[in-house]
Amino acid sequence: MTQQAGQVVFTRGGVPESVHHVHVAVVDAQGWVVASCGDAGLVTFPRSSSKPVQALPLALAVPELPDDELAIACASHAGTPEHLAVAERLLARSGSSVNDLRCGTHPPFNPEAAADLTRRNEKPTPLHHNCSGKHAGMLLACERNGWRREGYAEHGHPLQVRIRELHAELGGVGVDDVRAGTDGCSVPAFALPLDATARIFARLAAPQGELAPALERIFAAMTAHSFLIAGPGRLDTTLMPLVPGLAAKMGAEAFYGMALRDTPRGPLGVAFKIADGGERARPHVALAVLEALGVPVTEEMRALAPATLQNWAGREVGTVEAHVGLTWA
Amino acid sequence: MTQQAGQVVFTRGGVPESVHHVHVAVVDAQGWVVASCGDAGLVTFPRSSSKPVQALPLALAVPELPDDELAIACASHAGTPEHLAVAERLLARSGSSVNDLRCGTHPPFNPEAAADLTRRNEKPTPLHHNCSGKHAGMLLACERNGWRREGYAEHGHPLQVRIRELHAELGGVGVDDVRAGTDGCSVPAFALPLDATARIFARLAAPQGELAPALERIFAAMTAHSFLIAGPGRLDTTLMPLVPGLAAKMGAEAFYGMALRDTPRGPLGVAFKIADGGERARPHVALAVLEALGVPVTEEMRALAPATLQNWAGREVGTVEAHVGLTWA
Repeated sequence: MTQQAGQVVFTRGGVPESVHHVHVAVVDAQGWVVASCGDAGLVTFPRSSSKPVQALPLALAVPELPDDELAIACASHAGTPEHLAVAERLLARSGSSVNDLRCGTHPPFNPEAAADLTRRNEKPTPLHHNCSGKHAGMLLACERNGWRREGYAEHGHPLQVRIRELHAELGGVGVDDVRAGTDGCSVPAFALPLDATARIFARLAAPQGELAPALERIFAAMTAHSFLIAGPGRLDTTLMPLVPGLAAKMGAEAFYGMALRDTPRGPLGVAFKIADGGERARPHVALAVLEALGVPVTEEMRALAPATLQNWAGREVGTVEAHVGLTWA
Repeated sequence: MTQQAGQVVFTRGGVPESVHHVHVAVVDAQGWVVASCGDAGLVTFPRSSSKPVQALPLALAVPELPDDELAIACASHAGTPEHLAVAERLLARSGSSVNDLRCGTHPPFNPEAAADLTRRNEKPTPLHHNCSGKHAGMLLACERNGWRREGYAEHGHPLQVRIRELHAELGGVGVDDVRAGTDGCSVPAFALPLDATARIFARLAAPQGELAPALERIFAAMTAHSFLIAGPGRLDTTLMPLVPGLAAKMGAEAFYGMALRDTPRGPLGVAFKIADGGERARPHVALAVLEALGVPVTEEMRALAPATLQNWAGREVGTVEAHVGLTWA
């Protein structure tokens, strides 16, 4: 049964102005759905929240990979010099160059880094793409597995086939239940039920079986290098250091995945999707869900999701409220 | 009775990824609601779609005002040199300076204009704010009406009181039905039922009574200077020249108002609001509504709302479909 979706309401002068709906699934270490809001079975794309899974073949194939390079492979980075340096190092490890990256090109997400390029009259390269670390890691995973590097981004390539299987295996669904689209960076984007993605994050929170050592390394890399996962002022980077035992990853179109090691109910995996893709609602939902799961929400965390709206003149003009009522199984 | 809201669906690899909901009201020259989708009575903020009303006291007080200055007063401009020149001319007309503007500051919406500022290491001024023309016009309206210019942006100022009354008068509702918040540029933002805002645009399409000459001038200024209303590549600017007899105005949080002079059902006013504030859905809804109203939709117009999604590498990764079923009264 589908419950009522959660809401994030933007109000101006006491009148609701815009409303986002959200679906949430929470899964425990045993893989059970323990709480949800809205449609926990919604089939949707984790997008970049899939990156910890997409980095698994890399972690498995390159046991000696430094943590920072594993982190950049899991990142949607902001294109600062620090991000580029680590992505470049990972790229060089397979003897690849920026011309081998199939992610395309966009200006750095970090406004300062973008302005620096403009000031120098330089164009962004594929290395500035937020997914360049993931792509560099994919090239290295191919090289170490003896798979051709050419075509590494294509749906039929052995690496992408393996990543799809890993989504199914960790998500507890059949491979046929993992549907495939193409992502903003041209690799396959997989769609699966929201609770299956929550299960993937539960596996990251409480690794089991053969994949456990690689999942442990990914969890450790993400949390130790939260700056590399996103960038200055961005949600993953700011939130992870504030919540002990949290590995979190944003995905495009307002997806979010959280692996929580330390909650009153033990390790949990969380996945949520804001139905309209409205990214601005994400921090509000993330905090509401953490609070509902009994994770202490501090003032520093609340600053990530301001309850008041300010205008261009710095004047307070409205409020933002998240109503995310979890139903417990 | 509230009908089912319209939808704009973003699909990736055959799987719906994000969905926007939309409410639409269509009003004829007599002020009747003739068609709608979703909740035509939704109380919401037209935001900058109110600018033609906010410019009315200016048009009434300054009969000799050149069309381009009246247009910039109705604009959410992109901050190009051409926009700034007209806004500056309007500002000087009341002996005001950029320091008198209460709109606040943001970088120009036009990426080239913003990059130019960055390259010159200059900071944006209130003149770059998309509402600077409206504010310059408000200062002149005050000067000509003998109202103090100081505090022109405040809720209790005679100019803002008059603008609220005009919303009620043109919208066919009581003043008490016009609720007030504060806009991004610090002047009052009024909230009223969607069909009342559609009625305002119907009045702009088919002016009547005492206000008719001023409304005619505003319609003429907006359509003759569509570049000034928004800017390069933006919806109002591109759409108006393609649809004879259309004055259109975007508002923040994905509001849209259209005054249509030439449809098979005569002059019509349209207002719609995308419920979550998702701006990207607006051109798709605008074209769907125009088509439903019997306005010919050309290939050039369809290019404003591409039915396919491309990623950073220029690859086709999905589709966008608008389902806006108007119910006729």
